[in-house]
Amino acid sequence: MTDSENEGNSLDLRHQEKMRRRKEIQDREVAGKSVEKGLLVVHTGPGKGKSTAAFGLALRMLGHGRRVVVVQFIKGAWQTGERAALARFDDLLEWHTMGEGFTWETQDRARDIAACARAWDVARAALARDDVALVILDELNIALRYDHLPLDRVLAGLRARPAMQHVVVTGRNAKLDLIADADLVTEMTLVKHHFRAGVKSQEGIEF
Amino acid sequence: MTDSENEGNSLDLRHQEKMRRRKEIQDREVAGKSVEKGLLVVHTGPGKGKSTAAFGLALRMLGHGRRVVVVQFIKGAWQTGERAALARFDDLLEWHTMGEGFTWETQDRARDIAACARAWDVARAALARDDVALVILDELNIALRYDHLPLDRVLAGLRARPAMQHVVVTGRNAKLDLIADADLVTEMTLVKHHFRAGVKSQEGIEF
Repeated sequence: MTDSENEGNSLDLRHQEKMRRRKEIQDREVAGKSVEKGLLVVHTGPGKGKSTAAFGLALRMLGHGRRVVVVQFIKGAWQTGERAALARFDDLLEWHTMGEGFTWETQDRARDIAACARAWDVARAALARDDVALVILDELNIALRYDHLPLDRVLAGLRARPAMQHVVVTGRNAKLDLIADADLVTEMTLVKHHFRAGVKSQEGIEF
Repeated sequence: MTDSENEGNSLDLRHQEKMRRRKEIQDREVAGKSVEKGLLVVHTGPGKGKSTAAFGLALRMLGHGRRVVVVQFIKGAWQTGERAALARFDDLLEWHTMGEGFTWETQDRARDIAACARAWDVARAALARDDVALVILDELNIALRYDHLPLDRVLAGLRARPAMQHVVVTGRNAKLDLIADADLVTEMTLVKHHFRAGVKSQEGIEF
């Protein structure tokens, strides 16, 4: 065996030993977790991917043949791509677009509040069904931020849902009381954005 | 008109004026963007949602009837939910699982490097096709981090792709040179995680 073969072998062996120890730790961690519960998941922060990751989670759930309800609180005509794609799952997925666009599109506070109230009624109905495995409350954080919905009522509705039902709430500026109740919170942080470089919205990326 | 009606009206009018100004700014910003290009998108950071958001983007692209290729560099048996769901799109989607699990599962560095080299060959083929609108290089950052693939070769391959092709690279610890080349970088930050509270991996959430 040459020196360099020896060196390669020794590197491989050290790697193997390191990974063996890492696997032991991983296995122990996995064995230590036994709770099963419906999670309250929050996707917040100024970065992209909050709603997109929620729809990715919908896809995962649908792949297991389980029922998903999406309620959109703010966006209207957006997400045409996802809607078209998810139409292939109309046996398992219900999609409710209740918002009428961003508040700077409608420019009508009373109308926005009324739209949010209607969206919450639809959400509450989904949160009461134990045949629904996942409820996505898209841009609910925006509705809460503008006080278009009372936070207490929303938190009570979330707490009263079936024990095994998962919920994802998306939108910037998640309320602290919602984060306190949540099981999993991810903040999407903007590191670099192509809009700054003059690139416009493109099919399949922004819509 | 009562005082409280007057007050409500005045609040509504102030809101309307504020939102009108905001819409002007938005419209001006949108009008200022004219570039169309294939984006290099990076999802990194320790939080959840990096791959999930990438698959959500795949969904959006598929909804527009455009072709998507997924190459998984590390994960093997994971993401069973997404795979099952995306099987409904086999007319538009190609999915290549090239990795054999995390490095602490295989415990074999030489085998990991060989698997990464095979995955990169498949990726390069997709990056050369202008009928492919989106290429997802899932967990490529992990392969680069462990130096299982030469960074220069990967960056050259990404730069040589068709001008309108979008790419998403996922995984923790994205290399700085990759971030420098990217158009859109999002860091998923972990705020709170249910594993800490003893909750185990559940169908439709983790797999």
